[in-house]
Amino acid sequence: MKPHPIRLIWPRSANTWQDTKRIMNIEAMPYPYALPETPPALILIDMQRDFVEQGGFGSALGNDVSLLLKIVPTVKQLLETARELGMLVIHTREAHKPDMSDCPVSKRNRGKCDIRIGDEGPMGRLLIDGEVGNQIIDSLKPVEGEYELSKPGKGAFYATALDDILAEHNITHILFGGVTTEVCVQTTMREANDRGFECLLVEDATESYFPEFKQATLEMITAQGGIVGWAASSDEVIPALKTQYGK
Amino acid sequence: MKPHPIRLIWPRSANTWQDTKRIMNIEAMPYPYALPETPPALILIDMQRDFVEQGGFGSALGNDVSLLLKIVPTVKQLLETARELGMLVIHTREAHKPDMSDCPVSKRNRGKCDIRIGDEGPMGRLLIDGEVGNQIIDSLKPVEGEYELSKPGKGAFYATALDDILAEHNITHILFGGVTTEVCVQTTMREANDRGFECLLVEDATESYFPEFKQATLEMITAQGGIVGWAASSDEVIPALKTQYGK
Repeated sequence: MKPHPIRLIWPRSANTWQDTKRIMNIEAMPYPYALPETPPALILIDMQRDFVEQGGFGSALGNDVSLLLKIVPTVKQLLETARELGMLVIHTREAHKPDMSDCPVSKRNRGKCDIRIGDEGPMGRLLIDGEVGNQIIDSLKPVEGEYELSKPGKGAFYATALDDILAEHNITHILFGGVTTEVCVQTTMREANDRGFECLLVEDATESYFPEFKQATLEMITAQGGIVGWAASSDEVIPALKTQYGK
Repeated sequence: MKPHPIRLIWPRSANTWQDTKRIMNIEAMPYPYALPETPPALILIDMQRDFVEQGGFGSALGNDVSLLLKIVPTVKQLLETARELGMLVIHTREAHKPDMSDCPVSKRNRGKCDIRIGDEGPMGRLLIDGEVGNQIIDSLKPVEGEYELSKPGKGAFYATALDDILAEHNITHILFGGVTTEVCVQTTMREANDRGFECLLVEDATESYFPEFKQATLEMITAQGGIVGWAASSDEVIPALKTQYGK
């Protein structure tokens, strides 16, 4: 390999929006989360049949999906609140193009599973856009006015238009729900935090196949003064949103 | 807010390099890590005085930095091996420009600390490029031929040229060391994994202020067949590298 001189590479400038007038706080870990004037976006991560329902990719990997199904009523309540208040709603799906040109070889081969991304499963080709198993579950189906974002990675910012959508809507604050907590939810929240968004994870609207990983994630993201962001229960989040943004 | 139609947004195409001829494996969790023909890059995350030494940003936040200092000999051994074998070496530093134009307001205000990014500390302005506390610790100082990457986020891919540097060097595999495991190391490894890199965390070359978070991170990243990547000890990594890439 040819030697290169040491280089100091400067990052791009970040968004540096002004603090907005704040009225309501949500009781949260590690300290109250101040709601801004522009309502936060609600991002629901990967509530797709592949991960949540029996016979999808998640259960094909041997995971117990019943844990994930238990959060659906809470996620639905959060979604209905967001709709009622006119909040920006973004649903993500982990999905690849039918020709899999957006699926790294490393991802397809990882884990040496019997059934891999793109293979035929009980709900169609696994993690492929347009297949039955790749759809958002019926009870949380996106409606007119909401975004449905197909993402090739665990993080929803990588190789998607998410950053642009959030900028278009002047979003500074994001509430997160969805699955799984320590994989796609955490990865996306970390990406959002680096980009300067004030992020809150609704802790009973997210779940993992491994409850101990969910718990560790909640602790990690809120440690050190909220190094990645906040966590709060829907009992705190929903009434605060209604008070702040309701008519 | 004006309603928008539902949009399906397609991600960009990912790198889809071919599998290379593989010779040596590193014994790793969750299964052996196959070394490629082109040597992996070594990325050392944020081994900067602010985080590792007494009197820096880490200790100003009340953390016990002695835990982090203990990994320095192992990190040094890994770095010397990489140098001996001509591997691409990238050092990162979490740093902001002196005018802080790359520091989101959310980041500066988070945690409501007495001492904030950009404030004067015992080793100069905290997390500001060029300050004494922001330098890589003496024993790991970058040498000619290595990259030193200033990053404004926890993840080293966000708002940096890291992706381009790795592409320029035809890198497909990355070994990670540095601090702290669950914050900047994990975030960067997740970004790299989404981008299709085969990542291995050298578990005794990384540390956290919170040993339980380090342990949880090692478990999370290697779970589900290596959903983020692999972990192995330097006792496995260093001899395998020397056998595979030594003269």
